[in-house]
Amino acid sequence: MDYIQQRFSVPFEYRVYFTSDLFNLQNAVLQQFLQTDASHNIKKIFFVIDSGVAEYHPKLTSDIQHYFSVNKQVTLIENMLIVPGGEACKNTDTYVNDIVEAVDKYGIDRHSYIAAIGGGAVLDMVGYAAAISHRGIRHIRIPTTVLSQNDSGVGVKNSINYKGKKNFIGTFAPPVAVFNDEHFLFTLSEREWRAGIAEAVKVALIKDKPFYSWLCKNALALSRREMEPMQYQIKRCAQLHIDHIAGGDPFEKGSSRPLDFGHWSAHKVEQLSGFEIRHGEAVAMGIALDTVYSHLCGWLNEADTKSVLQLLIDLGFDITHPMMEISDDDSPLIKGLHEFQEHLGGMLTIMLLRAIGKGEEVHHLDIALLKKSSDWLKQYHQIAQQ
Amino acid sequence: MDYIQQRFSVPFEYRVYFTSDLFNLQNAVLQQFLQTDASHNIKKIFFVIDSGVAEYHPKLTSDIQHYFSVNKQVTLIENMLIVPGGEACKNTDTYVNDIVEAVDKYGIDRHSYIAAIGGGAVLDMVGYAAAISHRGIRHIRIPTTVLSQNDSGVGVKNSINYKGKKNFIGTFAPPVAVFNDEHFLFTLSEREWRAGIAEAVKVALIKDKPFYSWLCKNALALSRREMEPMQYQIKRCAQLHIDHIAGGDPFEKGSSRPLDFGHWSAHKVEQLSGFEIRHGEAVAMGIALDTVYSHLCGWLNEADTKSVLQLLIDLGFDITHPMMEISDDDSPLIKGLHEFQEHLGGMLTIMLLRAIGKGEEVHHLDIALLKKSSDWLKQYHQIAQQ
Repeated sequence: MDYIQQRFSVPFEYRVYFTSDLFNLQNAVLQQFLQTDASHNIKKIFFVIDSGVAEYHPKLTSDIQHYFSVNKQVTLIENMLIVPGGEACKNTDTYVNDIVEAVDKYGIDRHSYIAAIGGGAVLDMVGYAAAISHRGIRHIRIPTTVLSQNDSGVGVKNSINYKGKKNFIGTFAPPVAVFNDEHFLFTLSEREWRAGIAEAVKVALIKDKPFYSWLCKNALALSRREMEPMQYQIKRCAQLHIDHIAGGDPFEKGSSRPLDFGHWSAHKVEQLSGFEIRHGEAVAMGIALDTVYSHLCGWLNEADTKSVLQLLIDLGFDITHPMMEISDDDSPLIKGLHEFQEHLGGMLTIMLLRAIGKGEEVHHLDIALLKKSSDWLKQYHQIAQQ
Repeated sequence: MDYIQQRFSVPFEYRVYFTSDLFNLQNAVLQQFLQTDASHNIKKIFFVIDSGVAEYHPKLTSDIQHYFSVNKQVTLIENMLIVPGGEACKNTDTYVNDIVEAVDKYGIDRHSYIAAIGGGAVLDMVGYAAAISHRGIRHIRIPTTVLSQNDSGVGVKNSINYKGKKNFIGTFAPPVAVFNDEHFLFTLSEREWRAGIAEAVKVALIKDKPFYSWLCKNALALSRREMEPMQYQIKRCAQLHIDHIAGGDPFEKGSSRPLDFGHWSAHKVEQLSGFEIRHGEAVAMGIALDTVYSHLCGWLNEADTKSVLQLLIDLGFDITHPMMEISDDDSPLIKGLHEFQEHLGGMLTIMLLRAIGKGEEVHHLDIALLKKSSDWLKQYHQIAQQ
């Protein structure tokens, strides 16, 4: 056979900074990053901001303007784009098109920056627009929610939805830097503060027993909105995600997606609820379901199973929902399982729990056992509520 | 400063196969690739075909259907999408949307294939659609022109145009395999046969003096459409491109793009002509202009300069065009230079010739000298035509 073999590796690196009040002139973190990174002289920076963040931080845009009037490493594009937060910004290509148009209008080149300030959905959407403009404009992420600071914001994926299907369109494109600013956490709603902790529970369960024990000990403090344990939780969870990406299959060429523990049902329930149920809330319920399944298939003992459910309850999560119920093979959740398989690429790969801190993958879920797990969970939930 | 450092490399590999009559049942190349690659059992393959190819090869779709009715490693999606060839398929997002819709409709997952059969523009567009669907569906390229077999088809870029700006939207996404089938070359028009050779001249000039000498010796045979030298030219040029990508900066994070020798003006002239001038034809003129500039700036001697122009003429190329003329700072070509700089990312980087086979980059072009080069070339062209 006559062929030429091509083979190469593409290196990526970026830092996830932990800071407070990023655009305060006393804070040198961003300016030091730009000094090191901005090697050419006509760099620009364009900001896209989550409308929820803009609303709770009315001085944000003027702070940014003031910051770049003093720090002149890059030229601020004065017009900033405000986009709706949550899945609303991903359910249409309107905002992606707005960003591409801005890239054209303001002459944002491949060595300039597109910075996103917002929750995970906004970062996903802006990251996608940045990735496809000029084949990839440098993307800076400034996550403002617990979920995006400890999970999606520190990773390498971006996306928008298509006909209601989550993340159907997107790419793998690492950011050039992530700035986790605790300042944004203070204004989070009760629900948003809590929702992100589900990803910490997830990653602790599959990878890190000591972190799981820490979460159990600190669950009530976390749910009381204490900042110190929240900061520890975010940093530990981010570290576990970052290590996982670097150590595994960053662009997910295989079928294995261990970090999607609890996610197959979560994706579907989010969609079924019209995204009224938040991602983290759905993940908490997905974790509960797959934990019970792990128990009923004989892997996880009963005490550990109940400990997981109790941790979720202590954190203030619902562990199930009528939409999580599986009555038969045609239940919406079973349809979601097939969609998950398709998105994954043909072969189903689902993470379950061998033990606390030890995930293990399977390539088949038994529908009858899933139905039993859903019933078991519903019953436990009813008892726990009494 | 408090931060987590992320660092990883993503490996890529694929083969560029050289073959004849790919879908002939006697030809085992594709089937052997699929056998090795297709590790799961529900893989599908979806074909997108250049309308020009479909027209010249009316049996192609039935050959493909017959091929996959016998070779069952993957399931053929019987409906194939026929798209216009050339820039027409890149000037709109219609066809990208058609492909995304097909991905949804036919349940094409990340481990299935989207195969493109066509010229460079069709491969660019289909590659882009595949790259953004499910964050990247396996993409097979079957280039049908000289240009796509020796250059763009073997590389890692994809794109569509935006508001007439070439390749404004796109990503870097290596294919899983490329099949260069000489069978498609027989039906190429005179212009298409010739156009692709410009990229061979380009890469020989900047990297490979022996290949340049070979091209000079074989120019007339190539222009007489002899298949043997054409095959050698394609393979050598593809090899040089592949080596360059692997040895350099595959996803072009820096500003350096040595393979774009002669391309800054070519992109603009293509656009100015409404893509009536083909990419390869424009590149030939771009090479001529930058070769003369290399001469007038004191790098390339007169004999070598004239040898390059003679090679282009022997191959049947026009070496200039009224649209290539630079009368003043506001000439369209100068505007194209600024656009190229922007697309590149801020800092201008242009390849010139130190000698035959030795390119060298500069970060500035002198407008007055460019004007002089354009005049010099126009005059040479007039004399050559007498």
